[in-house]
Amino acid sequence: MSRFRDEIGEQPELAARLLANSGPALDSIARAFATSRPSGFVIAARGSSDHAADYARYLFGRRHRALVSLAAPSLFTHYGTPPRMEGQCVIGISQSGASPDVIAVIEEGARQGAMTVAITNDPDSPLAKASQVVLPLLAGPELSVPASKTYLASVMALALMSSAIEPDPAFKSALERVPEALRGALAAERDVGRLAGELDGPRAVVLGRGFNLCTAEEVALKLTETSYVLARAWSVADFVHGPIAVVEADFPVLLVGAGGSVSRDVDAIAGRLAEYSCRVIGLFDASTAPLAGVAAARIDSGLPEELTPLTLVLLGQLLANQVAVARGIDPDAPRALRKVTRTW
Amino acid sequence: MSRFRDEIGEQPELAARLLANSGPALDSIARAFATSRPSGFVIAARGSSDHAADYARYLFGRRHRALVSLAAPSLFTHYGTPPRMEGQCVIGISQSGASPDVIAVIEEGARQGAMTVAITNDPDSPLAKASQVVLPLLAGPELSVPASKTYLASVMALALMSSAIEPDPAFKSALERVPEALRGALAAERDVGRLAGELDGPRAVVLGRGFNLCTAEEVALKLTETSYVLARAWSVADFVHGPIAVVEADFPVLLVGAGGSVSRDVDAIAGRLAEYSCRVIGLFDASTAPLAGVAAARIDSGLPEELTPLTLVLLGQLLANQVAVARGIDPDAPRALRKVTRTW
Repeated sequence: MSRFRDEIGEQPELAARLLANSGPALDSIARAFATSRPSGFVIAARGSSDHAADYARYLFGRRHRALVSLAAPSLFTHYGTPPRMEGQCVIGISQSGASPDVIAVIEEGARQGAMTVAITNDPDSPLAKASQVVLPLLAGPELSVPASKTYLASVMALALMSSAIEPDPAFKSALERVPEALRGALAAERDVGRLAGELDGPRAVVLGRGFNLCTAEEVALKLTETSYVLARAWSVADFVHGPIAVVEADFPVLLVGAGGSVSRDVDAIAGRLAEYSCRVIGLFDASTAPLAGVAAARIDSGLPEELTPLTLVLLGQLLANQVAVARGIDPDAPRALRKVTRTW
Repeated sequence: MSRFRDEIGEQPELAARLLANSGPALDSIARAFATSRPSGFVIAARGSSDHAADYARYLFGRRHRALVSLAAPSLFTHYGTPPRMEGQCVIGISQSGASPDVIAVIEEGARQGAMTVAITNDPDSPLAKASQVVLPLLAGPELSVPASKTYLASVMALALMSSAIEPDPAFKSALERVPEALRGALAAERDVGRLAGELDGPRAVVLGRGFNLCTAEEVALKLTETSYVLARAWSVADFVHGPIAVVEADFPVLLVGAGGSVSRDVDAIAGRLAEYSCRVIGLFDASTAPLAGVAAARIDSGLPEELTPLTLVLLGQLLANQVAVARGIDPDAPRALRKVTRTW
């Protein structure tokens, strides 16, 4: 079994560890938040972490009615004209905590007097040292080059942070059910494996919407990194504005969905893609009825839609692993890729 | 000649028309801005217009030191939990002015008392009617389904808006040189045509950074819409964090660059891709030396980097058109695509 697959399997434990051990860090965040009373969030991140940032756009928008800006790091590092961030909560997300561009955003936030938070797997990293508060990912060493557990831990950390800032008993109780829900997702591996054969070509489209747009992006990246499928994610809404032209008979399209508010969009696109005879497959965490003509792996975790990016990305990681194995590729060491990438 | 190509050719005139006729609308924006003094920008857009919004992230960040949030429309239309936008300037960008989700963001902004601006080709559209100020694109009817001139006009409109909000003689003078610069880009059509043969496969990667990340996204979309190449754009910085794994010998990679602050990143990735024997091609608007091993169409408009997304996207549109023609595809009417797409 690959390290990538091993680390996917560690995630239920990791979620339990975050629930059990993040209390002190979350208390610090809640205190700093109550003192600073930020009016919005700025997030700096690269690669997989950037997809976790996209999750926060939806989660903080919905739970805190807050605007989230994704930092354009080159404004800080190349153009020398960082935006004003006073009154914002500036968050850097980086597994290694070593990427200079993410650190530059946090340092500038601190210089401007903003509240700063590091979400990182290395609490001794430069990113952590530059930040007012650190929320450790507690993921242990990640040996596989493609990230799995540090992405899921980043999403979980953002959800825990949101819960600490604005406590709600129902959300808290749902968070406590995450480890069990992840075990349920792991148990669907055989169903996921049945879909792998559909992704045997050079390209694929992955579609999500709302809370699971980040999942579509992250699963597309995993397929690209581990199996060399050029997979492109879109919001269903953006997809129908243009990129849908690319599909033709047998084109593989992966839908990621969790029922909920956006399910009618996902259902509608499934129908339209079936008309074009695409190979439509799906990863679903929902209690709704199966979609006709869509081969899918389906669980029903009972989590609120806001937390299904955790279960659904795990299904997507399993799928990426199975596709790599089916193609005879070692998912642990993708060609041309390094574990710690420093960008400026 | 296709309508798509005709409309590409109209763009120097269109830029001149925007310069000559936007004065009253820009005065209204400047007055509203001086009254409201917004602390940041929220932009709602879909498809190509979303890439124009991405341009604004960099332009408004650099010129006004302002944070720009890209709205997550489903928070407004599906989840019923729009973020607080008081004190923001809320901009809706839509060619047709008819997309319900973009309108919903503007309406909510107005409800919250925010300054609202419509950037649209139809000044009688619902989007225009819902907005405090309208900046018309003046592009005339766009008959080709894939957008060309309305995208360029949106980018130009954002630059004019920025100039009106914070006037600067050098920037104003550079804006006045845009029509001539676009004529220069059109004249490079033969050089662009020589690159079309490299995009004969099912997929491609397009890379940019900073101000021209939006150009990379838009050119990737044009290739996808008109030639059915699944083209995926990345920031060079995000690309090296993972997706670079996808490339192999002969993989086509298109670089979009304008010299300037980010040119060392573009140069460095060109070198690395050459090591993997990729087919590296480029569209450049820069006075710097050609890159070894990169077949490129190169102009030197003399525009500041902030305005090169105008010239470079025109080169990219020409390329998409040539690739479609070489593949025997009618770029005016991509399969599965409608001109006005209404999403909620």
